Amino acid sequence: MTDPAPPAAAEAAEAARHRAKMAKRKAVQDREVAGKTVEKGLLIVHTGPGKGKSTAAFGLALRMLGRGGRVGVVQFIKGAWQTGEAEAFSAFGDKVVWHTMGEGFTWETQDLVRDRAAAARAFERVRELMADDSIDLLVLDELNIALRYDYLDLADVVATLTNRRPGLHVVVTGRNAKPELVAAADLVTEMGLVKHHFAAGVKAQAGIEF
Amino acid sequence: MTDPAPPAAAEAAEAARHRAKMAKRKAVQDREVAGKTVEKGLLIVHTGPGKGKSTAAFGLALRMLGRGGRVGVVQFIKGAWQTGEAEAFSAFGDKVVWHTMGEGFTWETQDLVRDRAAAARAFERVRELMADDSIDLLVLDELNIALRYDYLDLADVVATLTNRRPGLHVVVTGRNAKPELVAAADLVTEMGLVKHHFAAGVKAQAGIEF
Repeated sequence: MTDPAPPAAAEAAEAARHRAKMAKRKAVQDREVAGKTVEKGLLIVHTGPGKGKSTAAFGLALRMLGRGGRVGVVQFIKGAWQTGEAEAFSAFGDKVVWHTMGEGFTWETQDLVRDRAAAARAFERVRELMADDSIDLLVLDELNIALRYDYLDLADVVATLTNRRPGLHVVVTGRNAKPELVAAADLVTEMGLVKHHFAAGVKAQAGIEF
Repeated sequence: MTDPAPPAAAEAAEAARHRAKMAKRKAVQDREVAGKTVEKGLLIVHTGPGKGKSTAAFGLALRMLGRGGRVGVVQFIKGAWQTGEAEAFSAFGDKVVWHTMGEGFTWETQDLVRDRAAAARAFERVRELMADDSIDLLVLDELNIALRYDYLDLADVVATLTNRRPGLHVVVTGRNAKPELVAAADLVTEMGLVKHHFAAGVKAQAGIEF
């Protein structure tokens, strides 16, 4: 430490500037919070090429469980991999209802008729869970993929989700969300890929990718 | 149903096209997987203005717990709100080590000296958790905010995270990730805000925002 300590006056001025900036920020924040009064079940979409779409949906499920809520999960595509989430959620007993309906990734099956039938069965489970008013949050994992491949009727899916119970939150994940679904949603996040370790030859690892 | 059923030949042709497309996709996928052989602890950054940065980090923590791993969490800024995640993670007992070091949002405190001291204490906990080789994944929630306000020395933080144990995964969250941190990271996701229900007057709700 060869630098002299800054004069007390300069330190005080910096602290005062910081305090004024933060006070202004707090006023904006308080005004924003006061302007929001509506409570409703949200239709949430996580899309985009980046990581974190399903992961954030499961993080939301965890948050809801922490608040004493009950969660339903329907996985439309995945299923070939036994996921860490499914194992972790078992700690919450019947607070989580989990259905893996897809028969693996679509390019694993190569059978259009079977894929469509699996997607239709999965969406039947969605209808049942939507009617169960003990469920607070429903995760429809990779539903966007099923819609992209036309395994399900888009208009029917969007209408069904739009006409959900007022208090029910629904999270839909998967790349390439259909514009009709985005239009119907309350909250849409696009996960963008800035940098990916797969490009550096790092493989999928337990606890991170699955 | 007034449309006639499609001829069997057309159905078979469609199924064949789908099968060929999926077989090609599977070949690409298999080749990609075979090319990835490295295992390493990742430095992951979740940034951007959209939702899901912290939520996806906690989803990763859940996945790691599902794989039998142990998780450390240090919250740099939040702390004023009792989060649903903290409650939910208590189901995992000592598999989760949780430290909320921030004294609320920065604009709540308006005290630069106190904020800097809180951030420094939080980063001391990070160093301790990094040295504890029972920890597999470390979530540094809102560290980007502490860096943005210069509460911590950027070069020191980046060097410390870069020199982590080989197997340790670290996730840093928060808007406005510093370019130096992005450069050091293995995986960076930018959460983009496409549509937000706050704009429609919907308020923050338990189980969704906190």
